Amino acid sequence: MTTHVCLAARAFGAERAVICGERDPKLLAGVNGVGKRWGGGFRAAVGGDWRRELKKAKRDGFTLVHLTMYGIPFEKRLAGLRKKRKLAIVVGGSKVPGEAYGLADHNLAVTNQPHSEVAALAVFLNALRLRPKFAGARLRILPKEHGKRVINRENNMGKSST
Amino acid sequence: MTTHVCLAARAFGAERAVICGERDPKLLAGVNGVGKRWGGGFRAAVGGDWRRELKKAKRDGFTLVHLTMYGIPFEKRLAGLRKKRKLAIVVGGSKVPGEAYGLADHNLAVTNQPHSEVAALAVFLNALRLRPKFAGARLRILPKEHGKRVINRENNMGKSST
Repeated sequence: MTTHVCLAARAFGAERAVICGERDPKLLAGVNGVGKRWGGGFRAAVGGDWRRELKKAKRDGFTLVHLTMYGIPFEKRLAGLRKKRKLAIVVGGSKVPGEAYGLADHNLAVTNQPHSEVAALAVFLNALRLRPKFAGARLRILPKEHGKRVINRENNMGKSST
Repeated sequence: MTTHVCLAARAFGAERAVICGERDPKLLAGVNGVGKRWGGGFRAAVGGDWRRELKKAKRDGFTLVHLTMYGIPFEKRLAGLRKKRKLAIVVGGSKVPGEAYGLADHNLAVTNQPHSEVAALAVFLNALRLRPKFAGARLRILPKEHGKRVINRENNMGKSST
């Protein structure tokens, strides 16, 4: 699940992920390996205690957006948040402590229904329209109606399968 | 992951999920339990062989949309698909067989980057703007700036925590 959160963050334009409460070196290697092959500057790192990370982000000028099914519909805050230069988005599993709600500048819901932090993050980031470019990609997809086409810049060859 | 796919499908307006290749009774009970408590007509069921299910859906008049990073950007087909009354959306794990690409009416990408089938499904369904109502819900959230407020209709009491 954390891998999917990180990859969705990258695909929809986040610059970095800070993972608190999990220390799986394979997870980091996997996510950052995708970043290297598919381009762009996204990196995932393991953070310290989540409270400390949130407080540090606030000190560094980030607006903290916590995505939670209990919050205000995100659409109501979208226009204002699109103008922020530094956004930190907090997603957690099913049991986010009450303290996180207090530390967040905005507690926002992507639907007030139970679903998935991956889904919430993706829909929210997509709505921000960050339009990432993925510069320096070694692998790129050539979109196809049917089948798969990946361009590998390193060996200057396209690999297809249908 | 399959639980998240099902819950995201429900939250963004799908009417049912058919799960192929997995037979976990707890998964079904969990997802359908959420549906009962939180309202609406969504139901998840276990299907048979995925080829047979896709072919059956086609015979039943569904347009098959397969979400894959290798496809055409979904935004290009959105206007046409919003008009369809019967859409079946196919998502799979990392290894979807080539045959699925052939059976699908549309192979569509939610970004041409590697991320998550949960994210892709949520962003695509959200873009369809299905606006589900969740009729008959026992539990409803009263959106809050901070903290949690759930209304339980059965006992006519709101449960809050901050």
